[in-house]
Amino acid sequence: MKKKIDHIGIAVRDLDNSISIYENVLGGILIDRYQSDAVGVESEIAIMEVNGDRIELLSPTNNSTSPIARFIKQKGKGVHHIAYQVENLDEAIKELEVNGIRILEGSLRKNKHGRRLIYLNPADTEGTIIEYCDYPDETL
Amino acid sequence: MKKKIDHIGIAVRDLDNSISIYENVLGGILIDRYQSDAVGVESEIAIMEVNGDRIELLSPTNNSTSPIARFIKQKGKGVHHIAYQVENLDEAIKELEVNGIRILEGSLRKNKHGRRLIYLNPADTEGTIIEYCDYPDETL
Repeated sequence: MKKKIDHIGIAVRDLDNSISIYENVLGGILIDRYQSDAVGVESEIAIMEVNGDRIELLSPTNNSTSPIARFIKQKGKGVHHIAYQVENLDEAIKELEVNGIRILEGSLRKNKHGRRLIYLNPADTEGTIIEYCDYPDETL
Repeated sequence: MKKKIDHIGIAVRDLDNSISIYENVLGGILIDRYQSDAVGVESEIAIMEVNGDRIELLSPTNNSTSPIARFIKQKGKGVHHIAYQVENLDEAIKELEVNGIRILEGSLRKNKHGRRLIYLNPADTEGTIIEYCDYPDETL
């Protein structure tokens, strides 16, 4: 099944400073900014567009439970995941099974725009956290 | 100055396995594979194309001196940098100075295709290692 990079997710601490870097240094545009209290997210999120590409800046709002906070504690700030659009998430999940790639337990959820998404287990992808999301978001 | 994502650089250990994941799971195509002994690289590199986007897989060839090995030791395998094409690297460097963003010392070099590149100091970019490279590589 065809896959295309949808966005790059980046773990940050200072969201305002990060937005300012993407605006002033990289020429990005702030598309959306919101807080997600969903389990497994618990972050303030800014969506930046840089010349057609999407960057998702994630700043943890809960230091003990947010996976973004845990990521920053373990690895430091920086790129957290690469998200790929897939035409059909259910088919993509079957395809992963055939390839012996596990899904991160409990990662299947909908984001605020109603897109279904999962995370692949980085132990099966040589370390990179890969997200699959089921269709391009036309509402943004 | 206009900037556009050129590629995403990913630190891995097992290059063959990584190539296989990008081919079989993500539908990528291996575009090039080579070893770079340049100071500051010292890695075996595979360039993958996934639906028009470029992924650079870097596997360190020297465990004590390669910065990729150091990155993996400190943070684990995963995304190492995001590279942006810039129209004019010298102008882009001046622009960084104006914005108070430092360049990683000694990072200015040419890659094997003759492209000049630098790394921005991640201390000034909220943790992400950002590469600037001076023009699209038409030779690949």
